[in-house]
Amino acid sequence: MAKKYVYFFGGGKAEGNAGMRSLLGGKGANLAEMTNIGLPVPPGYTISTEACKFYYEHGETYPPGLEEQIEENLTKLETVVGKKLGDIENPLLVSVRSGAPISMPGMMDTVLNLGLNDQSLQGLIYQTGDERFAYDSYRRFIMMFSDVVLSGEKNSPDYRPGLERLAFEKIFDEVKKKMGAKEDTDVDANGLKEVVERSKEHFEKQYGKPFPSDPREQLRLATNAVFKSWNNKRACDFRRIKNIPDDLGTAVNVQTMVFGNMGENSGTGVAFTRDPSTGQKKVYGNFLANAQGEDVVAGIRQAVPIDQMQEVMPGVYQQLLDVCHLLEKHYKDIQDIEFTIEKGKLYMLQCRSGKPTATGQAVVKIAVDMALEGLLDENIEEKGKKKALLMVEPQHIDHMLHRQIDPRAEAEPIAKGVNASSGAATGAVVFSADDAERRGKAGEKVILVRPETTPDDVHGFYGAQGILTQIGGATSHAALVARGMGKPCVAGCDQISIDLEAKQFTIGDIIVKEGDIISIDGTTGRVFLGEIPTIEAQMTPELQTLLSWADQVKRLGVWANADYPHDATRAREFGAQGIGLCRTEHMFMETDRLPIVQEMILAKTEQQRHSALDRLLPLQREDFKGIFRAMKGLPVIIRLIDPPLHEFLPDHDQLLVEATELRIKSPGTTQLAEKEKMLQAVESMREQNPMLGLRGCRLGLVMPEIIEMQVRAIFEAACEVKTEGVDVHPEIMIPLVGHVNELKAVRQQLEGVAKKVMEEQGVDIDYKFGTMIEIPRAALTAGEIAKTADFFSFGTNDLTQTTFGISRDDAEAKFLMKYVEKGILPANPFQTLDQTGVGVLIRMAVEAGRQSNPNLEVGICGEHGGDPASIEFCHRVGLNYVSCSPYRVPIARLAAAHAALKNH
Amino acid sequence: MAKKYVYFFGGGKAEGNAGMRSLLGGKGANLAEMTNIGLPVPPGYTISTEACKFYYEHGETYPPGLEEQIEENLTKLETVVGKKLGDIENPLLVSVRSGAPISMPGMMDTVLNLGLNDQSLQGLIYQTGDERFAYDSYRRFIMMFSDVVLSGEKNSPDYRPGLERLAFEKIFDEVKKKMGAKEDTDVDANGLKEVVERSKEHFEKQYGKPFPSDPREQLRLATNAVFKSWNNKRACDFRRIKNIPDDLGTAVNVQTMVFGNMGENSGTGVAFTRDPSTGQKKVYGNFLANAQGEDVVAGIRQAVPIDQMQEVMPGVYQQLLDVCHLLEKHYKDIQDIEFTIEKGKLYMLQCRSGKPTATGQAVVKIAVDMALEGLLDENIEEKGKKKALLMVEPQHIDHMLHRQIDPRAEAEPIAKGVNASSGAATGAVVFSADDAERRGKAGEKVILVRPETTPDDVHGFYGAQGILTQIGGATSHAALVARGMGKPCVAGCDQISIDLEAKQFTIGDIIVKEGDIISIDGTTGRVFLGEIPTIEAQMTPELQTLLSWADQVKRLGVWANADYPHDATRAREFGAQGIGLCRTEHMFMETDRLPIVQEMILAKTEQQRHSALDRLLPLQREDFKGIFRAMKGLPVIIRLIDPPLHEFLPDHDQLLVEATELRIKSPGTTQLAEKEKMLQAVESMREQNPMLGLRGCRLGLVMPEIIEMQVRAIFEAACEVKTEGVDVHPEIMIPLVGHVNELKAVRQQLEGVAKKVMEEQGVDIDYKFGTMIEIPRAALTAGEIAKTADFFSFGTNDLTQTTFGISRDDAEAKFLMKYVEKGILPANPFQTLDQTGVGVLIRMAVEAGRQSNPNLEVGICGEHGGDPASIEFCHRVGLNYVSCSPYRVPIARLAAAHAALKNH
Repeated sequence: MAKKYVYFFGGGKAEGNAGMRSLLGGKGANLAEMTNIGLPVPPGYTISTEACKFYYEHGETYPPGLEEQIEENLTKLETVVGKKLGDIENPLLVSVRSGAPISMPGMMDTVLNLGLNDQSLQGLIYQTGDERFAYDSYRRFIMMFSDVVLSGEKNSPDYRPGLERLAFEKIFDEVKKKMGAKEDTDVDANGLKEVVERSKEHFEKQYGKPFPSDPREQLRLATNAVFKSWNNKRACDFRRIKNIPDDLGTAVNVQTMVFGNMGENSGTGVAFTRDPSTGQKKVYGNFLANAQGEDVVAGIRQAVPIDQMQEVMPGVYQQLLDVCHLLEKHYKDIQDIEFTIEKGKLYMLQCRSGKPTATGQAVVKIAVDMALEGLLDENIEEKGKKKALLMVEPQHIDHMLHRQIDPRAEAEPIAKGVNASSGAATGAVVFSADDAERRGKAGEKVILVRPETTPDDVHGFYGAQGILTQIGGATSHAALVARGMGKPCVAGCDQISIDLEAKQFTIGDIIVKEGDIISIDGTTGRVFLGEIPTIEAQMTPELQTLLSWADQVKRLGVWANADYPHDATRAREFGAQGIGLCRTEHMFMETDRLPIVQEMILAKTEQQRHSALDRLLPLQREDFKGIFRAMKGLPVIIRLIDPPLHEFLPDHDQLLVEATELRIKSPGTTQLAEKEKMLQAVESMREQNPMLGLRGCRLGLVMPEIIEMQVRAIFEAACEVKTEGVDVHPEIMIPLVGHVNELKAVRQQLEGVAKKVMEEQGVDIDYKFGTMIEIPRAALTAGEIAKTADFFSFGTNDLTQTTFGISRDDAEAKFLMKYVEKGILPANPFQTLDQTGVGVLIRMAVEAGRQSNPNLEVGICGEHGGDPASIEFCHRVGLNYVSCSPYRVPIARLAAAHAALKNH
Repeated sequence: MAKKYVYFFGGGKAEGNAGMRSLLGGKGANLAEMTNIGLPVPPGYTISTEACKFYYEHGETYPPGLEEQIEENLTKLETVVGKKLGDIENPLLVSVRSGAPISMPGMMDTVLNLGLNDQSLQGLIYQTGDERFAYDSYRRFIMMFSDVVLSGEKNSPDYRPGLERLAFEKIFDEVKKKMGAKEDTDVDANGLKEVVERSKEHFEKQYGKPFPSDPREQLRLATNAVFKSWNNKRACDFRRIKNIPDDLGTAVNVQTMVFGNMGENSGTGVAFTRDPSTGQKKVYGNFLANAQGEDVVAGIRQAVPIDQMQEVMPGVYQQLLDVCHLLEKHYKDIQDIEFTIEKGKLYMLQCRSGKPTATGQAVVKIAVDMALEGLLDENIEEKGKKKALLMVEPQHIDHMLHRQIDPRAEAEPIAKGVNASSGAATGAVVFSADDAERRGKAGEKVILVRPETTPDDVHGFYGAQGILTQIGGATSHAALVARGMGKPCVAGCDQISIDLEAKQFTIGDIIVKEGDIISIDGTTGRVFLGEIPTIEAQMTPELQTLLSWADQVKRLGVWANADYPHDATRAREFGAQGIGLCRTEHMFMETDRLPIVQEMILAKTEQQRHSALDRLLPLQREDFKGIFRAMKGLPVIIRLIDPPLHEFLPDHDQLLVEATELRIKSPGTTQLAEKEKMLQAVESMREQNPMLGLRGCRLGLVMPEIIEMQVRAIFEAACEVKTEGVDVHPEIMIPLVGHVNELKAVRQQLEGVAKKVMEEQGVDIDYKFGTMIEIPRAALTAGEIAKTADFFSFGTNDLTQTTFGISRDDAEAKFLMKYVEKGILPANPFQTLDQTGVGVLIRMAVEAGRQSNPNLEVGICGEHGGDPASIEFCHRVGLNYVSCSPYRVPIARLAAAHAALKNH
């Protein structure tokens, strides 16, 4: 028996269900599920993704049995709906849509009204009694079929110019003009008949053959077109960006047409079961009376908020609310639905999770609300809260912690649109996706301004800080994509008028040209001229609730990297349980200190060096006091000076140019002599590969005075703060250890200083000495090193650099991004920990370290400490904590909870 | 019962033997052994190293029982020799000498003639009937005892100025002058008596107490002085340089004095049982009639070649030859002996292995000769040859492969001395060890020229290319030390006259000033003005024999790193079994090619780049043809381009200075414009850390044209050479792979090129594709990588850099040498493989690689491939071969044999 490729839905039951996503695609699986739970779904059938995969693997041919199964299901469909494809009296019209296992909104193609030809047109007129409607449907079908199915992909060898939508719209516009019609609806049946005739003529002229009139051939061509659309450029680009595998394939959904454009008791709409922007518990969406679905999605006509439906068709509205509630209860998630009302009857055309296109703030609120409503699980405490945690992805928290416009900023907005994706963004105005991509890649901050956006604009979103559109609301393409990416977006801002040719937009008298700076506030929908002050995001009550649940579940500690007292305070507010990395050299870089630091480095005598260090000591002591006070007894890991000393000196090339100029212009001056002295000093300290040079503990071994001063400052600060009554737990971290003897020597030297200070002050401090594990040799010999260390902290930035032999500064632009694009590396290893390479070293080091020192405290302080996938790895290898930037602490708390839930 | 600390030897048997080296020191153990095998050794006793260790561990006190044991043995000694310490009629005189477990020639102190005072002097006169001799002995004793035992170490708190040898020699000189004596021997007994009196007066004035006259006190003070000399600065420095542990301690040898200065039928000498310079089977040394041993060793008087002894005392000479043969047969090694003839009777004072002070050439010849003579083992084939292999250390071969003066050079030598240590050296003349050290460290080539050398000069040997002395022969201090270090040395060149104050030496009319360049030929003893052409060393027949034995034993292959045909030829001559690394970029650096390479790098268009590559192709093809022909069918591993491209462009800083100058001096010129263009190009390619940047296979992935050209050149060359009838086995090595996908992508691309060329040429080549394992990630994921690689080659230079996180260029001067000095690292990991860190990665990679690809060929091509300790590691982890520079191939062959013999 041939394999089953086609799954029927209709007549109250379906062969598929929501669990069959990878076989039937998201849309097909959900159509089947909705059918099964009794919702009004127009009947149809789904051709599985396996058929698509076979199609690609066998030179674009169908698998054996597929033709027959399609025919069988078509017959069944005709029986269920009581109509026949191409029938002159009661014709069946269908839509043909793609549907991939992973949502790829707008990336692939759709054909509506399929089955129309000169005969079935008569049947449609007979059935609807509406000649104008029938011709309008026919016109649309010819246009869409030509564009989607037959014109082929641009830049591909089978591309046929002249069959695009635009060519047919031009014909319509000509007829409109001839008839003196203003709106589409002003064109009567005769006009539309003329459009149809001229469209068919145009088609034959371009294509060399008449428009295909056999409905079965139409169906076969449309099915193939959907298969092919899986590999169009847009879809491939999307998959690459989203890391979706190329071999999943798409399903094809063939479904009975229902018509929202059959008069005022018809209509169509899209809705979210809760507000996707705020999470508010209220059905949210848009509705357009007497229209087909494509009109709404494409934003061609302006839809109205969905609650206005209550006035025009209250019964159907109530039915819709009931459906929404049923769907949420069934799916335990916010749903994003499409529906059509045909002559007062509600049909569900799609449902899918609303999460991918909701803001982070909304997802968090919905998860918490649904848990507390008992909607996720009746056992709220034991299971509901855990399900809520798993509903929220770390990036949702990331997005909601973006900066916001400062509410105290007294700026007047120049316009207001729909608050489509929250957060504030400032940048130079650009008017094309290409410009946004190019300038964004070059490091410029830009705001992409478009009348509306289409899937062809998506590459520009990545380069832009935010998006501003003139047309479309919270469910428009721009809004969906921006929310998915966490980019601020103000949509449907119809007060602005865009002139793409002149590269400017106007609001009344105000002209905003390309390159002018604007700010947008996606949280409120406001648009401002210039740069507006922003503030850090605040935690919402729901987020605090959710993270308190996370803390009950997670086993990893979450610490923060903080160099200053205000960072430490912020970290605590965000729930950090310690400071995992305080970089002392940042303190050296401050403008009032740099001259002293330079004096210390360039000192000719011991005395000069000590004099400079004596002046730095009180400054460093104050830094540490501030941090200890802020952390109120939580552990603070302080890393001793790490970078090579030449980083504190003037730039070599600059000095070289200046000295060369002076040699010519002012030879023999003291100015030249001093410049040359400095140049010489810098040259003597220059290194071929500073990353691998005289830095970290190597500095401390060659020039011990600096770290002795630092440890003195730490312990003096600790004693003072402890005397104030605040508990302190400093942990001294010695960087770049590669051989245990380095640690032994430095620790011995510094512990002497520590003990001396405690003796001087008469205060006893609970302290630790430990090391970064950031070069492979340290990881390989961790068993030895752990005998001398109280803690390890994986410095995965440097560990990744040395394990890969890659200098991040040099690599990212020059080849690393290309590696990721070409699939040579699965991801940028500086963002997501390379578990198969670097991870092996970490695992070895943790095991060997714990074996020789069971009390060893082990954490991570590289950037990976804030990356969810890396956090899960850290949980699995049994680290004690992860440490990340303060703003990633909430994300890490959730990720740590996820890790605990997924790895019980 | 108290522990035994004192070991007696004498009267035909000894309590110790040669195996008790660490307890009795080398000298003591061999004195015991010689006694036991019946050689004429003056009786005595040895105080063990354990007594010395106790002495240091317990605040310079003796262990319990030592005093008593010394007294006991002294009494025994008095009985055996029939003399009494301090006796007025028949006094016992003894020497007190140090003797460490590991030879530290000249580093510690010796006292002769101990036991003399005003009473025993009379006994000596009575016994010898030679008043002059007795006073001369007394004079020498006072001088030596004051200097060695009582003056203390310079720079130490117990240093007493005025007690040094020099002060007493001044007294002797004054008396000589007063008496009008020319030579020491011209001073008669009365004169010597005056010297003794004045010396004692001088002593009392300086020391505040009279010269110690109690022989037992003399003995105690001398014993302590030997203990203390273990920790004098010279000895400590020597141990640091030679990596000898500080806690071994020295033994003290107290031995009956015999006198070589008792007339013309007395004498003293030092000898090697074979020629330590050439290895010739012939007793070799110096003899001085009527003299004490110190005169020979210190080179104070010029000794005569030992065979002249035959004329003056033929019987004793024959006895000496017999002793030498007996010693060789007993020790199975060349021996370095000291002997004294007292009134026609031969006494052996010392024997030790002559290997440490023999040339490499000699050691090799001696090992081969002794094996074939059956002296090492009667079973020559099975055991003798293996023992010969173990007799020779890799550094012996290293030394003998130093460069030699070109025999075709028609230079006239300006002087000729003793060919004390072979090899040629050229450099600027310096006259002090300090200068040699300082300038040598700064990278300058210098020749150290001294009248003679002492242990205080040894630090200068390290900095010098070679050593030239005016006094002393093949057994002088300079000769011994130079041979031990493998530095060329011409000794006893008495034609030169050195003026240390004027910093110059003269030979007749020729004046050579400090800084002038000279060349010395330690192989022939010649000295030249200026730089003389040298040639590579040749293999001696004995070395070829030895290495053929090595090849029968070793299991590791020995390949060579060679970039040019002549290197490849040389490598084959030295026994290389393949080329393990042919660096293609060296070919790019040649002056005629660099402009084309730069054109290729700076190309603006594909076409320009291809045009440059098209011109490089035939050049590279010729390179490879030469190498393939030279290797005659042995495998050749060719590494594709590795360094970052900016290495082929002009120096950035130079360009920046030139452009800055032109901006001021010639603004607006095309010259400036071109300079700026080049500067911009170089700047765009500059990297923060080029070691970790765009190089290796990364280059190939970003700019595939270069490596495609290289592979085309390799395969075109291979096809042509194979067509000529020479077998070829190219192995393409892809550098810097960190992720298997890099190798997959590059291999796929290049294998396409290879197949295309073979098709074009109609020739089938046996080839391999493989990778360097030179970054930690490659080693960590070797199991995956081996699935795509036919071979691994460990690039341990880069692997060490990345595993340690150390840039060799930056580190060696800035901190690595300090690390080794301070003992933080046991050795420079770039010279000797770090087995506990880098070695772990290698072991992991070999195991995982072989597991997933059992046919994997695994080798090493870093510098460690020529380092004996690292080679042993490579043997143990099971590599297939090591690859090193051609000149290290013979060394590696021996080291590989050693590894096999030691790790059966």
